[in-house]
Amino acid sequence: MKNKILLGTLMLLGTMALSGQRAILNVPELPGYVTLKCDFHSHTVFSDGLVWPTIRIEEAWRDGLDAISITDHIEYTPRKLYIPVDHNAAWKIAKTTADNFNIILVQGTEITRKMPPGHLNALFITDADSLNRPDFMEVIEAAVSQGAFIQWNHPGWKNQEPDGIPKFYPVHLELIAKGWLHGIEYFNEHEHYPLVMDMCRDNKLAVIGNSDVHGIISEEFGTPEDVHRPMTFVFAKERTMESLKEAMFAGRTAVWYGNSLAAFEEYAAPLFRSVVTAGVPFKDDGKAIWFELSNSSDIPMELTGGPEGAPAELRLPASGMIVVKADRKYLSEPMPYNVSNIITGSNSVLRVEIKPAVK
Amino acid sequence: MKNKILLGTLMLLGTMALSGQRAILNVPELPGYVTLKCDFHSHTVFSDGLVWPTIRIEEAWRDGLDAISITDHIEYTPRKLYIPVDHNAAWKIAKTTADNFNIILVQGTEITRKMPPGHLNALFITDADSLNRPDFMEVIEAAVSQGAFIQWNHPGWKNQEPDGIPKFYPVHLELIAKGWLHGIEYFNEHEHYPLVMDMCRDNKLAVIGNSDVHGIISEEFGTPEDVHRPMTFVFAKERTMESLKEAMFAGRTAVWYGNSLAAFEEYAAPLFRSVVTAGVPFKDDGKAIWFELSNSSDIPMELTGGPEGAPAELRLPASGMIVVKADRKYLSEPMPYNVSNIITGSNSVLRVEIKPAVK
Amino acid sequence: MKNKILLGTLMLLGTMALSGQRAILNVPELPGYVTLKCDFHSHTVFSDGLVWPTIRIEEAWRDGLDAISITDHIEYTPRKLYIPVDHNAAWKIAKTTADNFNIILVQGTEITRKMPPGHLNALFITDADSLNRPDFMEVIEAAVSQGAFIQWNHPGWKNQEPDGIPKFYPVHLELIAKGWLHGIEYFNEHEHYPLVMDMCRDNKLAVIGNSDVHGIISEEFGTPEDVHRPMTFVFAKERTMESLKEAMFAGRTAVWYGNSLAAFEEYAAPLFRSVVTAGVPFKDDGKAIWFELSNSSDIPMELTGGPEGAPAELRLPASGMIVVKADRKYLSEPMPYNVSNIITGSNSVLRVEIKPAVK
Amino acid sequence: MKNKILLGTLMLLGTMALSGQRAILNVPELPGYVTLKCDFHSHTVFSDGLVWPTIRIEEAWRDGLDAISITDHIEYTPRKLYIPVDHNAAWKIAKTTADNFNIILVQGTEITRKMPPGHLNALFITDADSLNRPDFMEVIEAAVSQGAFIQWNHPGWKNQEPDGIPKFYPVHLELIAKGWLHGIEYFNEHEHYPLVMDMCRDNKLAVIGNSDVHGIISEEFGTPEDVHRPMTFVFAKERTMESLKEAMFAGRTAVWYGNSLAAFEEYAAPLFRSVVTAGVPFKDDGKAIWFELSNSSDIPMELTGGPEGAPAELRLPASGMIVVKADRKYLSEPMPYNVSNIITGSNSVLRVEIKPAVK
Repeated sequence: MKNKILLGTLMLLGTMALSGQRAILNVPELPGYVTLKCDFHSHTVFSDGLVWPTIRIEEAWRDGLDAISITDHIEYTPRKLYIPVDHNAAWKIAKTTADNFNIILVQGTEITRKMPPGHLNALFITDADSLNRPDFMEVIEAAVSQGAFIQWNHPGWKNQEPDGIPKFYPVHLELIAKGWLHGIEYFNEHEHYPLVMDMCRDNKLAVIGNSDVHGIISEEFGTPEDVHRPMTFVFAKERTMESLKEAMFAGRTAVWYGNSLAAFEEYAAPLFRSVVTAGVPFKDDGKAIWFELSNSSDIPMELTGGPEGAPAELRLPASGMIVVKADRKYLSEPMPYNVSNIITGSNSVLRVEIKPAVK
Repeated sequence: MKNKILLGTLMLLGTMALSGQRAILNVPELPGYVTLKCDFHSHTVFSDGLVWPTIRIEEAWRDGLDAISITDHIEYTPRKLYIPVDHNAAWKIAKTTADNFNIILVQGTEITRKMPPGHLNALFITDADSLNRPDFMEVIEAAVSQGAFIQWNHPGWKNQEPDGIPKFYPVHLELIAKGWLHGIEYFNEHEHYPLVMDMCRDNKLAVIGNSDVHGIISEEFGTPEDVHRPMTFVFAKERTMESLKEAMFAGRTAVWYGNSLAAFEEYAAPLFRSVVTAGVPFKDDGKAIWFELSNSSDIPMELTGGPEGAPAELRLPASGMIVVKADRKYLSEPMPYNVSNIITGSNSVLRVEIKPAVK
Repeated sequence: MKNKILLGTLMLLGTMALSGQRAILNVPELPGYVTLKCDFHSHTVFSDGLVWPTIRIEEAWRDGLDAISITDHIEYTPRKLYIPVDHNAAWKIAKTTADNFNIILVQGTEITRKMPPGHLNALFITDADSLNRPDFMEVIEAAVSQGAFIQWNHPGWKNQEPDGIPKFYPVHLELIAKGWLHGIEYFNEHEHYPLVMDMCRDNKLAVIGNSDVHGIISEEFGTPEDVHRPMTFVFAKERTMESLKEAMFAGRTAVWYGNSLAAFEEYAAPLFRSVVTAGVPFKDDGKAIWFELSNSSDIPMELTGGPEGAPAELRLPASGMIVVKADRKYLSEPMPYNVSNIITGSNSVLRVEIKPAVK
Repeated sequence: MKNKILLGTLMLLGTMALSGQRAILNVPELPGYVTLKCDFHSHTVFSDGLVWPTIRIEEAWRDGLDAISITDHIEYTPRKLYIPVDHNAAWKIAKTTADNFNIILVQGTEITRKMPPGHLNALFITDADSLNRPDFMEVIEAAVSQGAFIQWNHPGWKNQEPDGIPKFYPVHLELIAKGWLHGIEYFNEHEHYPLVMDMCRDNKLAVIGNSDVHGIISEEFGTPEDVHRPMTFVFAKERTMESLKEAMFAGRTAVWYGNSLAAFEEYAAPLFRSVVTAGVPFKDDGKAIWFELSNSSDIPMELTGGPEGAPAELRLPASGMIVVKADRKYLSEPMPYNVSNIITGSNSVLRVEIKPAVK
């Protein structure tokens, strides 16, 4: 029922920006936490991006995000003929706009090396210029000393990993051993890497998903099939920078990309329950019952593998509802389903039990 | 964030219909009541409509409505060369589908006379055929004896009232005197009649808005500018036929049409408060404060006439949020605004006070 | 650039219908012929459809079609409890509307039997009621004696042909031997049957594609992925009933469904050439040339399997253009491609040669 | 029928950009000329814009434009703290991309002064840096000596002209007297100035319309109501820089904005005739005739003020058709209409005569 809100409705400069409009995303919640919608990977003209930094804030505001990071490359600055290299510039420029829009702007940068180690984002840093030095381990150590959350980016990117399969090299294992790696991108821009779920679970790392946008968010992700940018849900105690950081180091994250959600089962199960609700049967003909199943979130739910006497598939639209007709026996026993678009591991999806409510 | 759900995604016949998808409308609530979304005026091939009755149920289900009435004309049956006249047929045909979709189907018919009295719907009747008799007052008496809610339709329709201004004729005053008129259409199809607000308030009648659809709902109301059908909100104690009826006779209604809402002030004020929320100021530069104002409903809110030191206009999108920047004095005093799209009378709109939340 | 035209912009009844708006479809042409856009399979309330017959004309007009047929079932009339059976009624009702909208209304009906023979449409008939008799061969003979074009419908429909593979039964071979079968549906509603291309070519039958719509065209085919109804292109000498009929018996047809076109190679090759044009190279760096390739039709073109030194794939949007960068050698030799969305047989697609224009 | 093509379908960098998709705009033509679609006013990060210069080329390519100019401000460079001032930089950066996309990139700049004289674009220049000098007349003289076309921008912009009414100041009259003013913006971004039509006609200047985009084209002009950016049609002998320049100095231009076209009558009349076509009457009931009226362009046509016995209004959709029902007398005499969306002067619209074709 909601019309599309485009950046064009923001007056881009000056005080009128305050009349811009922001979408409210209806997303699942973890009991006791607030779900922060975050994108920790984006670029501007200060490396190889195509926009001025304030655009990133206005896009985030309009799209309903809570926190972003601008992560221009340290080692790749193709605009330097026209724009002198300043690794902190994007952050400084965007900060005022972020403050005016109540966006949490995480200072960050992308450490950009050949594989291994590949590309890594240092998030929550205080000075990116000081991370411009040749030795990789020294850079990470410096970032960590600034309090950084280190995120390994697109580990299966075919430009760096021709078989597309993410794998730990010794340097990554060394980072993990030192406690210097905190998350891995399961999703980047338009691709995801299933194995990252297992790599993160085995090593207690946060699962991350980002846009890695270089151009225009509404053009890259504005198609009817792909209506929102990829993002990381962070389950924080409050909507503050500190709570965000605490939650990320604690690994309380999930990734929303396209119509899918990736999360460890301990988060996936309560997230599903927070938005999917079964009603009391409204019809009973002695053989079958009819009841409503509703989904209050912006994420459609695809339930498959239904049991005998129940629908094989249940496709719950975003902010929508379906009627389930099932055998009367399901008044007293639950119906098991797979939620095929909630990914819990490289080879597993969320398993749920559906049962009609009792008056 | 929600994709459009079209009837095409319903399998129209047979048990597969149960896998159809229903939109959830996010609408304001009155404390202690549930808002039923209703359309009490529609047609089928059994008078001058263009569709089979089951279509009306499937449209209502898909669009998130709770209750509808099919109100084919008693006195106008242009298909009779091919379809024998049966004023109860549409109801009988649609009832099974309604039961399978949990839609409250109110039996109704349209008594179709020249002005005065014009057209009136009898709702909650039990037999439409018995209302097919020449004397108008006899018809109404018969309907009332079935327990009918009598609704006067499109009183300013130019085909019957050339100046477009609704007015009571003696016959209407007689109906009111006898307690035989219970509501008037403020909105019909694509037009509204401002004076109806006053006519209803003065006579304790319910304000009603309906589609009066003859063709296809998604084609008449599926444009980007007009994304939902006009409908009546009924504030009922429960989602049942009985509660619906009780609320309508009690006049607890509002009308949602385009981006506007029409309701008596006693309902309009709490409805507004149920969906619009101000946040705690997140920025304070010593002169001005910045705070978020959000709207959780599918109805945009247009606030105008703001006071000095505050924005003159605040345009709150559906399911969206804006930032308000205002003088610091508004930490301690409220900002008065007109809600120019919430109509409370022929010449008045809702007046509200906005103030930022306190931590 | 074109906005969507919905039926809602038509005033459905009376003379105002004449202010309705019709889309112009930009489709390929066969030199010397006009491409008529046709749908020869649809239903109304006079069998198991859900709309009044005039809706079919208004949908066709709005959507840019030239000719349709309403083909209600002879043997299946589930509305008969309310609507007396009259197999000519839909045609009679729709004819006036068709004449007012300049739509060629082909009288038709669907002969509805178990497989074999399954369902067949008789088109260009003069009396459907006379085809209501038990013996199948007698019915066909009667239809043929009215001048009918006999079309076999959805031959791989799983309700009748569980393996989904269309095949001739003796009864079909008998029809062919007698010259009483003239076309087969390659496409029906949402599915297509690849083998039909070969069955038609081997037996000199017309390839047909239809909507078989029972509900609402704009809802069944109005999604972003499926923007037009399936239809048959008939390459006629003129836009008249007689020319249409001549062309169909001559087998000059193609089928447009989704983003694909099915046509025998003798038609497919000139159709492609009528809308795809290469420009003169606008850049030449000594190694490569750059030139524009444009598509003036509403059908995207997907070229695959490009040769060395040229793009592997060329995706030409509807009413759009791309730039091709290729080795300079292609100034003097053509680039072979497969047009993977122009189907010429059960196992073949159109093969074309692309070469830049010469000044 | 055409899907929206967004920049996201372009790979923004490197050779893959060549697989991007370009819309073909269907616009009216002047006999003997080609209509070049142009935007002569846009900004980048090199003044107060928000994007890197190559974005402007990719937007233009995608949107079907033929020529653009990037016209960053000479006197206003708010990014200079981070980007050293170089008035030729945007042109140099964009030129290679323009050459790869066959876009005519006109070198330009915006001379940015208080009113009078206000803002003027110098187009077809060879060096913008040399125009950075204090004396306004010297700047214009220098630009003219480079061969510049001088365009006065948004003459009724309320920031500079509080009453919104464009008017010549002595400085403008001096420019005209010297032959140093060649065109005026009738349309800029979201507003138009009716008087400019007369000011241009009286002084033999070209009528111009531009986006003046600072942000993202698809976001500023991508709404359902405003589907294309404002642009200038230039009627050139060929699609070359030289022909473009010749046509502009000759004043052969028109402006397309929203659903309106502004052009002097000498161009407006043949433009209309090049796209609107009446058919032969297909029905004649002795009193009235029915005939088709079609519009092959992307510009809807709104005909009003129809004569007695003909429709008062005819609304021809983009790439669409309507049926006209009119009195039989119009077989022999034309029907006069106003084309209310083709503006020919500050107070006049195009007047046309519609008559059905003869077989």
